[in-house]
Amino acid sequence: MNYQQYFSADVPSFLRSPVREIFRKVDLNAICSFAGGYPAADTFPLQEIPSLAASVLEKYGTKALQYGATQGVPELRELIARRYGVPVSQVQITTSSQQGIDVCSRVFLDPGDIVLANNPVYLGALQSFRAYRAQVMEVMGFTRFARNDNGTVIPSPEGASVSPAPKFIYVIPDFNNPSGETLSLEQRQELVRVARELDCLIVEDSPYRELRYSGEAVTSIRELAPERTLQLGSFSKIFAPGFRLGWIIGPEPLLEQIYVCKQCLDLCPPVFDQYLAAEFLGSGALDRNLQKTIALYRHRRDLMVSLLDRYMPAGVRWTYPEGGLFLWLTLPEGIDTVALYDQALSAGVAYVAGSFFYTDGSHRNTMRLNFSFIAEEKMEPGIQLLSNLLRNAL
Amino acid sequence: MNYQQYFSADVPSFLRSPVREIFRKVDLNAICSFAGGYPAADTFPLQEIPSLAASVLEKYGTKALQYGATQGVPELRELIARRYGVPVSQVQITTSSQQGIDVCSRVFLDPGDIVLANNPVYLGALQSFRAYRAQVMEVMGFTRFARNDNGTVIPSPEGASVSPAPKFIYVIPDFNNPSGETLSLEQRQELVRVARELDCLIVEDSPYRELRYSGEAVTSIRELAPERTLQLGSFSKIFAPGFRLGWIIGPEPLLEQIYVCKQCLDLCPPVFDQYLAAEFLGSGALDRNLQKTIALYRHRRDLMVSLLDRYMPAGVRWTYPEGGLFLWLTLPEGIDTVALYDQALSAGVAYVAGSFFYTDGSHRNTMRLNFSFIAEEKMEPGIQLLSNLLRNAL
Repeated sequence: MNYQQYFSADVPSFLRSPVREIFRKVDLNAICSFAGGYPAADTFPLQEIPSLAASVLEKYGTKALQYGATQGVPELRELIARRYGVPVSQVQITTSSQQGIDVCSRVFLDPGDIVLANNPVYLGALQSFRAYRAQVMEVMGFTRFARNDNGTVIPSPEGASVSPAPKFIYVIPDFNNPSGETLSLEQRQELVRVARELDCLIVEDSPYRELRYSGEAVTSIRELAPERTLQLGSFSKIFAPGFRLGWIIGPEPLLEQIYVCKQCLDLCPPVFDQYLAAEFLGSGALDRNLQKTIALYRHRRDLMVSLLDRYMPAGVRWTYPEGGLFLWLTLPEGIDTVALYDQALSAGVAYVAGSFFYTDGSHRNTMRLNFSFIAEEKMEPGIQLLSNLLRNAL
Repeated sequence: MNYQQYFSADVPSFLRSPVREIFRKVDLNAICSFAGGYPAADTFPLQEIPSLAASVLEKYGTKALQYGATQGVPELRELIARRYGVPVSQVQITTSSQQGIDVCSRVFLDPGDIVLANNPVYLGALQSFRAYRAQVMEVMGFTRFARNDNGTVIPSPEGASVSPAPKFIYVIPDFNNPSGETLSLEQRQELVRVARELDCLIVEDSPYRELRYSGEAVTSIRELAPERTLQLGSFSKIFAPGFRLGWIIGPEPLLEQIYVCKQCLDLCPPVFDQYLAAEFLGSGALDRNLQKTIALYRHRRDLMVSLLDRYMPAGVRWTYPEGGLFLWLTLPEGIDTVALYDQALSAGVAYVAGSFFYTDGSHRNTMRLNFSFIAEEKMEPGIQLLSNLLRNAL
């Protein structure tokens, strides 16, 4: 059988996640892994699941096991609406925030369409945009290498001729995956100005916004431009990723088409899981757990940064994330983190090469390091292994 | 804001589910509803959920709450593979079997492509194919109106010039949604012959296959043509739809692209729910529960058919389903079930107009009746209301 003949014209643009390929091949528990973007298992409310489940079954009975509304169960939508101060009609529950990205791609993108993105860009978003054969262009890129460094801001593309008009700007403004960086209020205002000038939408991806360890919260882009922003939220980092739940907050005329599209995708989000999330959020347990999660991750970030300070050879620089799960290393030009990867794995340490997050595969001297998932006792040996590797490569 | 300008070229082809629109507007519990395709809540293993959950948490701990493999958790894939006698590498877990349909559409269909389908066709499939701007053509249609009636078989389209070559044939061979009919072995062999002649794939949608109440199981299309068949399975009717879990069994080269596509869709299926399903299936509880479900539905089907026999006016005919959740009513020409619908609702009875399941909106003298969801005590008054309505319309 020649199976190639059956595939759609989109398939050659499908991009395999190099991160997920690493997971397929390597037992990350056997090495020191800074790869992946997993939350710490210690943050999952394991002990509370049985009582949450009992409470859901008592309150909702078989309704919790039946098909549900495509928009999500009313109880969860109501809680999200209240938490973020928006009407319920502006909340759509999604089966993961990755689905949020995919449904936005599906509803807005045609082949050849332009998405403006901050660079480096989240790989799952890049996969989704590419799979619809959209062109991804850089709208804003910057890297702060120290706590007091404002970094280099590459200006918005208003000077460049962008044709066709971009459909949307995709951005993770808080603790970007992969770079760990946060857009300042001025940068957000600039981004909104650009979006209004180009008359395009904004997809504000906010999976980490509630995970801030230092500094002050910055106004969300949705609050700055509610008329054109779809804000994606996620339960993966504030509850548990095994439930695959997220949400979209946005203008009703956009959510209406997303709702119709979602009927095709999976009819409705997982109902039992939605009630578990509603119970966890509504009872206040989510916020109590979030405080513990923040304390844990703050400690891990601080440990990570102190280890980098101690061990990394001169010429290596890194971002200082005020929240989220990642920081970003930039090595001297000429060091190729893609080429070094097998050597790193053999030595017992894993990372994700930074060039995977660039639309053009550039920046081969960068890497993403995750500090949320790794066991704390593995952090020091891991950073030592990585430092030795880089020292030898310099 | 003019939001229309942002939508992709696919959006005008999005089809709103009339069934889901009914659910939005009417409290189905307040009337006698034969609409919808919900399983009976009595079949959900409500009492067993707490012990399943406890067992999952004990066996797998935080792994049950973490991100999982895109293909599905190995334990569940293994159980599905064993149940259906295929290698694990040929099993992909999906976030609902609707996602199975959607991912097949996404991986195989370009605008203008042809899908051959048995008519009338499942609405969720029709929505998905249309949303990719595919053309849906009838490959095989037939209606048996009595237990001994072999019905009219509309032959396959080999005579007609089909251009471009169809990408796949979509079919629910067992207890079709909406018609309740089952393809005979000869009809399946004919369908496979057509697929081989046209050199296209087959998407065999099998959500009801395990729900047989009488007659003998017929060999699945996958078994007849494993080289070109993607068989979609669902936990919604044998466990509970609130978990949104299904699977695809198919040739590895096809599953490989479906796997890459699924990374974009939602990264992985719900992990906790997959472990619950694995526990339910692996312990034998699923099969015990299935026996009870079959007995309950057999009783409801028999009750439904006897009520139709008793109350329906002459000239109304219906299919006799050997399994599944639906039967199909054909009324004398000239009676319009779309036009009658508001009157039916006012009278306190709901159905789904049959024309919604036809690609061309024809067959306005047909309707789909569901017999799984309605409370048994509502069946007789419901059928009486419907019969009176039709008698007045004749």
